[in-house]
Amino acid sequence: MIECYGGDISEVRHVAATGSELAQDIVFKASDATGRKLIEINAQQLTGGIVMTMIDEVMQLHLGGKLTTGLKNEILSMEDLSKVYTPGVARVCQAIAANEDAAYEYTIKKNTVAVVSDGTAVLGLGDIGPKAAMPVMEGKAALFKQFAGVDAFPICLDTKDTEEIIAIVKALAPAFGGINLEDIASPRCFEIEARLKQELDIPVFHDDQHGTAIVVLAGILNALKVCGKDIKDVKIVVNGVGAAGIAVSKMLLHAGAVNLIGVDRRGAINRLEVYDKSHWTEFSLISNPFTEAGSLSEVIKGADVFIGLSAPNILQLSDVKSMAKDPIIFAMANPTPEIDPELAAPFVRVMATGRSDFPNQINNVLCFPGIFRGALDCGATDITEDMKLAAARAISSVIEESELSETNIIPNAFDPRVVERIREAVIRAAVDNGVARYPGLLLGSK
Amino acid sequence: MIECYGGDISEVRHVAATGSELAQDIVFKASDATGRKLIEINAQQLTGGIVMTMIDEVMQLHLGGKLTTGLKNEILSMEDLSKVYTPGVARVCQAIAANEDAAYEYTIKKNTVAVVSDGTAVLGLGDIGPKAAMPVMEGKAALFKQFAGVDAFPICLDTKDTEEIIAIVKALAPAFGGINLEDIASPRCFEIEARLKQELDIPVFHDDQHGTAIVVLAGILNALKVCGKDIKDVKIVVNGVGAAGIAVSKMLLHAGAVNLIGVDRRGAINRLEVYDKSHWTEFSLISNPFTEAGSLSEVIKGADVFIGLSAPNILQLSDVKSMAKDPIIFAMANPTPEIDPELAAPFVRVMATGRSDFPNQINNVLCFPGIFRGALDCGATDITEDMKLAAARAISSVIEESELSETNIIPNAFDPRVVERIREAVIRAAVDNGVARYPGLLLGSK
Repeated sequence: MIECYGGDISEVRHVAATGSELAQDIVFKASDATGRKLIEINAQQLTGGIVMTMIDEVMQLHLGGKLTTGLKNEILSMEDLSKVYTPGVARVCQAIAANEDAAYEYTIKKNTVAVVSDGTAVLGLGDIGPKAAMPVMEGKAALFKQFAGVDAFPICLDTKDTEEIIAIVKALAPAFGGINLEDIASPRCFEIEARLKQELDIPVFHDDQHGTAIVVLAGILNALKVCGKDIKDVKIVVNGVGAAGIAVSKMLLHAGAVNLIGVDRRGAINRLEVYDKSHWTEFSLISNPFTEAGSLSEVIKGADVFIGLSAPNILQLSDVKSMAKDPIIFAMANPTPEIDPELAAPFVRVMATGRSDFPNQINNVLCFPGIFRGALDCGATDITEDMKLAAARAISSVIEESELSETNIIPNAFDPRVVERIREAVIRAAVDNGVARYPGLLLGSK
Repeated sequence: MIECYGGDISEVRHVAATGSELAQDIVFKASDATGRKLIEINAQQLTGGIVMTMIDEVMQLHLGGKLTTGLKNEILSMEDLSKVYTPGVARVCQAIAANEDAAYEYTIKKNTVAVVSDGTAVLGLGDIGPKAAMPVMEGKAALFKQFAGVDAFPICLDTKDTEEIIAIVKALAPAFGGINLEDIASPRCFEIEARLKQELDIPVFHDDQHGTAIVVLAGILNALKVCGKDIKDVKIVVNGVGAAGIAVSKMLLHAGAVNLIGVDRRGAINRLEVYDKSHWTEFSLISNPFTEAGSLSEVIKGADVFIGLSAPNILQLSDVKSMAKDPIIFAMANPTPEIDPELAAPFVRVMATGRSDFPNQINNVLCFPGIFRGALDCGATDITEDMKLAAARAISSVIEESELSETNIIPNAFDPRVVERIREAVIRAAVDNGVARYPGLLLGSK
């Protein structure tokens, strides 16, 4: 019955049986909200049984939120109290007042990241506001802890004003060792990140831009290896010139790409056009060296790589067929990619998406825990382009040459080598770039 | 040797002995930094031994800070990830976007308090800045968790601008169920608290004012019982008309006190004088009904109660002798009280201080965990005067009539009944005042 309405049963537990009556727990995944409703309505009618209760496991898991705070040392006596609070704590305060750098030693700063959002560009949901954005930011903070032992705290701001957001994050900075900006709408996110990077002495990282860019680059590097192509020689089309699209393009260029073309609704971005969005004008100056113009279908001809950060089903099969030999497609619109992976499969050499139910999932969780782990451990004052590039290469490196294949270009997020490798690579790059407060000190221990 | 320099040895552990050599761990409390230094210098010389290393236990306990974040549910598989993060989390976000109140159900809001400071009035240290204030705010957050299971997070702001602090706390509010203001200098703290109380729909509580006031009132209620006096009849002198002094006075008046006189450097505050500080003008209107004027020594004549929130050794023994029969002295300047408790003892019926090494310690930790536990559990939109009064009475109630004595007017902070009683009393008062989002729902469970 459940299957008839798109439900996918994963477990049936016999809970109790009395005489001819039987109670069962049935765990299933509904296709969507409508499917769930239909199953609920029809279960009773069709089975002749009674639905005692329907529990939504995802909602259940969120009851009370996903994070807690914890104490490093319990406070169980007046003696304890006098050490971690007044009067003992005064000595610690004075040590920091005398030397601000001591904050890294005696407060949570060294291991703590703020996950900051204004709730204006949340997942595929858009501007849902700071309260509704909290479950995502809590989830992000939880992932920081789970994957890299970073203590992160969600800060969802009830303001959309660029200057106010900048002022707030600057004012909050004393407690934190890093700032992870998240789900802030474009173009506001550019200004906010640029200003904070300039004005703060701790790393500031807009994950939607740079996390995505790093993981895409990691995947592209391995995909090119599979195809035996060199990044310097290939033609790359990036569809969707928003915050993520621009960041991905800049990373690819920093990694050696030359012939990279961005396409948005008005077609290929090129320096002969005039744009009212200043980030498009800037983009036109660093990309599209051969000044190609026209629609996606036109400029994709002969391209080796398509990277979509745009909208569902925007890429046609005919477009794919017009690409160069052994095309690479990264279709990352979520949850519906730019082209149906199964439809495209016969004509594509390497296919990647943002989804976990296809091979080669491009998932930001591969990057942000490790890059902040590295940045915090060396006391980085910034996350530089070289640190990002090092992180991307570290991610690709987890897939050994021998394991590399069309369907295995990117590691699993739960592979512990991912954070480990990124951390080391990021620390080395930070030291090389002269942005590490503790150069060389912490490579050995995690 | 250690004792000669004021050190107090609490433990000697024999760690190792080889031949005629002996290694010992000696745990001692130094009188102060100078004492510690003298012990370090002289230990070697006088004992003929070698000091291997001196470890400062308090600093040690603060390494890396005192707080961590934790996950309610571990994320160990792609399946887990899809539930607590994308795509599953989107459903939770949508539920909150559709109904903002659902934030109390599905995010950390319901159990999370921000401990907010600008670091301008920290303990006895004054304006030491936000970074140096962090150990205190972390300690406060740790106490919230230890005593009442409240998840609290330290927010130390790098700004002293009243309007900016108000704007920031308002912007931060979506994630929090309550705001605990801490160590913000006067008079800025009045405006900040008043505005935030008005403009936010979650409780805002300046602990230095109201936490102190509640615990003082709790102590005074029991001290009056010991002396067989009624709060309506007694003459009370409050020395130090700053933020805490005013809050204490208002609580006493709310609890029924009539003849209450505030004294500051210029003498007794009274309505015939003109003050440039507006909080003194306001204070003059609600206190000192008989318009007494003059110095502390003048107005303390015949007083039943002295409450000091001022400076060390400001109260003379002759002042104490001029008070009414069975005087009550709360000398709370820290670490040196307004009068030496041992000196005053023979002439005082009930003596209380802020110190843990004398009986009757007036300690804010008796109040803030329980009052927020109650406020959060009933979803209070405010902490009202009645809720504060209820909290004070709840604290006094922990000392049974039979246990009550001159040296036992206030419970130990580690007595679990304290939080329990405050919580219940605060919820009842919140429901009575109509400020409880969940009236009656949560009295049973903690």
